[in-house]
Amino acid sequence: MARERLYFDYNATAPLLDEARSAMVDAMDLPGNPSSVHAEGRKARAVVSNARQAVARLCGVPAAQVVFCSGATEAANHVLTPDFRMGRSPVRVSRLFVSAVEHPAILAGGRFAADEITVLPVDRDGRLDLEALEEALAAHDQTSGQAMLGLQLANNETGVIQPVRQAADIVKAHHGLMVVDAVQGAGRLPLSLEVLGADFLILSGHKIGGPKGIGALVSAGEILMPAPLLRGGGQEKGHRGGTENLVSIAGFGAAADAALEGLGEIGRIAALRDGLEAGLRDQAPDVILHGAAVDRLANTSFFSLPGLKAETAQIAFDMEGVAVSAGAACSSGKIGLSHVLSAMGADADLGAIRVSLGSAHTENDIERFLEAFKAINTRRLARMGAAVAA
Amino acid sequence: MARERLYFDYNATAPLLDEARSAMVDAMDLPGNPSSVHAEGRKARAVVSNARQAVARLCGVPAAQVVFCSGATEAANHVLTPDFRMGRSPVRVSRLFVSAVEHPAILAGGRFAADEITVLPVDRDGRLDLEALEEALAAHDQTSGQAMLGLQLANNETGVIQPVRQAADIVKAHHGLMVVDAVQGAGRLPLSLEVLGADFLILSGHKIGGPKGIGALVSAGEILMPAPLLRGGGQEKGHRGGTENLVSIAGFGAAADAALEGLGEIGRIAALRDGLEAGLRDQAPDVILHGAAVDRLANTSFFSLPGLKAETAQIAFDMEGVAVSAGAACSSGKIGLSHVLSAMGADADLGAIRVSLGSAHTENDIERFLEAFKAINTRRLARMGAAVAA
Repeated sequence: MARERLYFDYNATAPLLDEARSAMVDAMDLPGNPSSVHAEGRKARAVVSNARQAVARLCGVPAAQVVFCSGATEAANHVLTPDFRMGRSPVRVSRLFVSAVEHPAILAGGRFAADEITVLPVDRDGRLDLEALEEALAAHDQTSGQAMLGLQLANNETGVIQPVRQAADIVKAHHGLMVVDAVQGAGRLPLSLEVLGADFLILSGHKIGGPKGIGALVSAGEILMPAPLLRGGGQEKGHRGGTENLVSIAGFGAAADAALEGLGEIGRIAALRDGLEAGLRDQAPDVILHGAAVDRLANTSFFSLPGLKAETAQIAFDMEGVAVSAGAACSSGKIGLSHVLSAMGADADLGAIRVSLGSAHTENDIERFLEAFKAINTRRLARMGAAVAA
Repeated sequence: MARERLYFDYNATAPLLDEARSAMVDAMDLPGNPSSVHAEGRKARAVVSNARQAVARLCGVPAAQVVFCSGATEAANHVLTPDFRMGRSPVRVSRLFVSAVEHPAILAGGRFAADEITVLPVDRDGRLDLEALEEALAAHDQTSGQAMLGLQLANNETGVIQPVRQAADIVKAHHGLMVVDAVQGAGRLPLSLEVLGADFLILSGHKIGGPKGIGALVSAGEILMPAPLLRGGGQEKGHRGGTENLVSIAGFGAAADAALEGLGEIGRIAALRDGLEAGLRDQAPDVILHGAAVDRLANTSFFSLPGLKAETAQIAFDMEGVAVSAGAACSSGKIGLSHVLSAMGADADLGAIRVSLGSAHTENDIERFLEAFKAINTRRLARMGAAVAA
């Protein structure tokens, strides 16, 4: 009998939670369009409204400040724009600053032109260089428009937590806008726009056990908003046209509730991750644990093994029945070099293996992971020994 | 015991088909991200690939010409843009023409500026005025860029079928681009980009019994494509960033297969609709059946009753247990005046009731509808009689 596979790629996508699944199946039975005025429409609308409240609770804002969309990439393209409105008055944002380790959805810069985007450096642990931010904002010509910073709460590859609040204070001192990509932080760190100092926060459903293809743009108020990206119907109070993805929104709402409750599980997950890394160090004393010197997400380990390319290791793990990734889930099904490792000054050619855990994992899973690792590492050591002997 | 409600609002959204539901539930069990290289990722990717083939079959194109997105509104905002690429070379589209009866998602004009959009008139039956199109395209300055026409295959309110092929021939004669909004035509009329003369076709999952919040932009080739709307990851071959909505795509694929098979049901549905309209005429000889003189979708009836505002009638039907709509599903849960009726020169203030059928309906449903109509119409006639007597 084939052994059950081990899924250690929660940062790419988390398996659907039972709560989310159940909410989605229930929503499937509702025939109506949330915009319709009849009873069927009102029932569908209530599902959207409840989910909106759940997402709002996760972020500590009123429900009216949650705009649902098709995922974090859409939210990023919506909010990263030069074209804002304060009520009905236009507000111009003339430059987007991003850290060098942002997710491609942020790095691409949304609706900013390439020459309106400035990439800021990170330190060797992958944290935004706050002095560079201060200098860049001081040099920004505010007569051309406001500055905007797009910064992740935690990195998807390393799990390294960014100094979001400190960055936000700098941005505020320069009258700029702060956009926080909280995709990897949700359910793993407390989220509060107020505490983070965020004007806008980006969320994704499928990283917290909801379905893929749903997300939200959460705002610190209702007055200052980006120009709509999807024009058409007046859904989402005119901020996002298009019939709502009722089933996905229902699942996202349930996952948001679970994420809020799941913060209590973080200590247990951190212990599992630490056990995993102790096992790695034990078997491979030369292992490089990226970002381990600074605050990281409790669920993430990102490590390199001298003499073993991450791409090769990932395939070997897969054949051992273990799903891990070599950097981010690459969008074309191929593996590219990690821009995160490059920005940190690490060996991007060697690459790194990402192991990302979730609430379903147990100590037994860690043991089974370390068994698989043993087989792979033994072959690595043998090859390295042979290379030295040759 | 409360009677089961009657749902007659398929043009707003169709209830989920069993096939779609089943495909969605199956997809929920797949933990992986379609972009991941491990076994879990490959399984998820296969679901996307199969669904893409189903949607491609519905449109008679190779699967590579289907780009999934979050719905018809996103597809419209993606394709309605001045910024195209022929391979790597930029192609400029300088003017968008739309008919006056388009869906708001088309009428909003996507990424065109307001002064780059020209609205063309329709005749009293709601069909695009082809002479006006010919004149407008002849007057278009081609040195500024190509012209584009956005035209629906069938109207969402009246069901009236547009002269798409004739319009496409005119557009082609002027070297323009033809975008067909096939949202209401899918599953009700044969779809073929070649037969329609379409360069691009817009589809929505939830109008054919798939889930809400998923759709596709289908193209006649792979070379000439609009600039991406959602920038970020390289999903959908770089045309649309963002993790795919696996569950919704699975349901859309199953619904596309069903839509292709369901074309055989159209004769039965037309007979039901015709029976419904005969019943309306019988009880209310003064009923106005919009678009009945020309080719319409077999499932749609759009009628006005002198002395009874559609908004009032819609609520009365709802209280009788029948879901119909007064014009389009209005995006804010309120009812606005129908721009379709206005464009046709009809009484938009009076409004009209839309009854839209689907494959689940039976003769018994039509009888029950006519019973509900009888109660409402009797009150209308009594009020009108009282008004005349007063």
